Amino acid sequence: MKTWFLESEKIQPPSENWRRKAQTRLKDQTRPAGSLGLLENFLERLVAIQKKEKIDLARKRILIFAADHGVTEEAVSLYPKEVTRAMVLNFLRGGATINALARSIQAEVRVVDMGVDGNFEQERGLVHRKIRRGSRNMLQEPAMTWEEMDQALEVGWDEIKSAAQDGCQLLGLGEMGIGNTTAASAVVAGITRWEAKDVTGRGTGLEDRQLEHKIQVIEKALSRYPAASGDPLLVLQHLGGYEIAAMTGAVLSAARFGVPLVIDGWIAGAAVLAAVKINSRVLDYLFFAHQSEELGHRKLLEWLEAKPVLNLSMRLGEASGAALAMAILDAAARVYNETATFQEAGVAGRER
Amino acid sequence: MKTWFLESEKIQPPSENWRRKAQTRLKDQTRPAGSLGLLENFLERLVAIQKKEKIDLARKRILIFAADHGVTEEAVSLYPKEVTRAMVLNFLRGGATINALARSIQAEVRVVDMGVDGNFEQERGLVHRKIRRGSRNMLQEPAMTWEEMDQALEVGWDEIKSAAQDGCQLLGLGEMGIGNTTAASAVVAGITRWEAKDVTGRGTGLEDRQLEHKIQVIEKALSRYPAASGDPLLVLQHLGGYEIAAMTGAVLSAARFGVPLVIDGWIAGAAVLAAVKINSRVLDYLFFAHQSEELGHRKLLEWLEAKPVLNLSMRLGEASGAALAMAILDAAARVYNETATFQEAGVAGRER
Repeated sequence: MKTWFLESEKIQPPSENWRRKAQTRLKDQTRPAGSLGLLENFLERLVAIQKKEKIDLARKRILIFAADHGVTEEAVSLYPKEVTRAMVLNFLRGGATINALARSIQAEVRVVDMGVDGNFEQERGLVHRKIRRGSRNMLQEPAMTWEEMDQALEVGWDEIKSAAQDGCQLLGLGEMGIGNTTAASAVVAGITRWEAKDVTGRGTGLEDRQLEHKIQVIEKALSRYPAASGDPLLVLQHLGGYEIAAMTGAVLSAARFGVPLVIDGWIAGAAVLAAVKINSRVLDYLFFAHQSEELGHRKLLEWLEAKPVLNLSMRLGEASGAALAMAILDAAARVYNETATFQEAGVAGRER
Repeated sequence: MKTWFLESEKIQPPSENWRRKAQTRLKDQTRPAGSLGLLENFLERLVAIQKKEKIDLARKRILIFAADHGVTEEAVSLYPKEVTRAMVLNFLRGGATINALARSIQAEVRVVDMGVDGNFEQERGLVHRKIRRGSRNMLQEPAMTWEEMDQALEVGWDEIKSAAQDGCQLLGLGEMGIGNTTAASAVVAGITRWEAKDVTGRGTGLEDRQLEHKIQVIEKALSRYPAASGDPLLVLQHLGGYEIAAMTGAVLSAARFGVPLVIDGWIAGAAVLAAVKINSRVLDYLFFAHQSEELGHRKLLEWLEAKPVLNLSMRLGEASGAALAMAILDAAARVYNETATFQEAGVAGRER
């Protein structure tokens, strides 16, 4: 048995006591009660997770899990699968969107090769955890073997554990993988039994006809594995991918080790869904970065009862939304830590 | 004639040429086209305003215009008007929410007393532009005289002009004033002829009965000055306030001097509406920070065809939403400046 499986049962809820302390502090600060809107919920949860007088988000790390997908053989993406490897190199050299965003919030970027279809030699900074050069084509056979999926979950678990041991206080979770919106849609449809057409979007920019084809591919894949339907692990194995399973492991691990985790967009969201089905307590530790433009994400967030930090119609992946949301949480934490109380500032409270 | 009036006719649109350059650069960067969603529009506009190869938002300033409102005699707010002065002192001492947010984005905070009902002696850092100790009660007489409003517009104009001369590259616009959600609702209803009940919200947290009373106060005020209806300046004068007029002047000035201006929430939005009615070209220079919880703000943003950066159900004012949105624009600017192109990174483009 893998650690992720044995340990994820030990997930504890954040501290109710500290949450109440946070509520009191927010109410005492010089603002009308509730006027920070959703930020108040985020701040209460950060305090309940960290269990300290002040919120400390100084050390931030962004994790990007990368893998290729056999289903790209079915022409579901506008870009060739070689782009996955090229973008990983771009991340490592600091040239991608996520690198600019990470620099702006002073976060580390850690890129984990879960299953890119290509070699990386001795690339500096890459975390080598390749399980296979790309998942299998889900239309032909299960995307992963059970053992591979188990291993991918464990890698994700260990990455968060290491981050916690390194003293990281806020983590961002994202991915890179040409074809992975297809896998994510299949995973969400497989777990929820929603119709493929309701959770399949345009990915990097498909046109109507191409989208129709993508939906058909997903429907075919779903019908191929009826026994998996509704079961998060079987669905992950048959329809997911190495980076998606790693993210599911990461979500479980963040909850186990008590580190707030910011979830990027649609594909990371699919990984969350699987984790929630394994242990719903993970939700208390998650911050949903944004509602992406990808069809189905809104439906998924509503099902999770998650209020995303941002809604900017983004659809990039690579943890870009997570990084932007981390900037908001960082600023909000300063408000919690630094705002004077009514008493300290000599400001009168409500008169009625 | 005041400068604001003579000069605001000279507002020019941002550079179409630079906007096209920005579009090309965004398309060349290693991302699927359009994948940054709304951020791409913000970035294009920042480039079209700044007319430079790279976006520079290093120097940021947040302007808070403060004033009291005679209409507080009608019991429209939960807090006593003394809170306006106390919060101004809180801003100056760095203890308020906006101070924490400003520190987190390294922005200056400049507080302008437009008409606070109280004395400030020699408070360090306050900009003394008091026109009167609070506006008049709009149910009894016009909130301002024409000359006072004209003067308030000029103060707002001059503040932005100074900021531009000081080299500020991104400005945030907000306010403080107990009772000013009432004035803002009256201004919006007066200019648009929308019904008071559709644009009147709970302010700092009114209950149903108190909200009903607030709506009646606004309806009474609107019916008292029928000749003002639809005219932005007459509406501002009769139903607005010193800080609202100053913000209208600031909006016109930002467009004239070509400085991107981030608009906070509902009350700043009312000031924008007046400015747009005076010269609709201002819109190209504005970034709407967030959709606030205040009823009517959504309707106003839709009418302005404005896509807000954030939607966090905030309702605080004091430029708090503007500061958070400035953090997002700052991070987005880094993406524009620093992301590698497909060619630089050796990443293949679309294959279909």
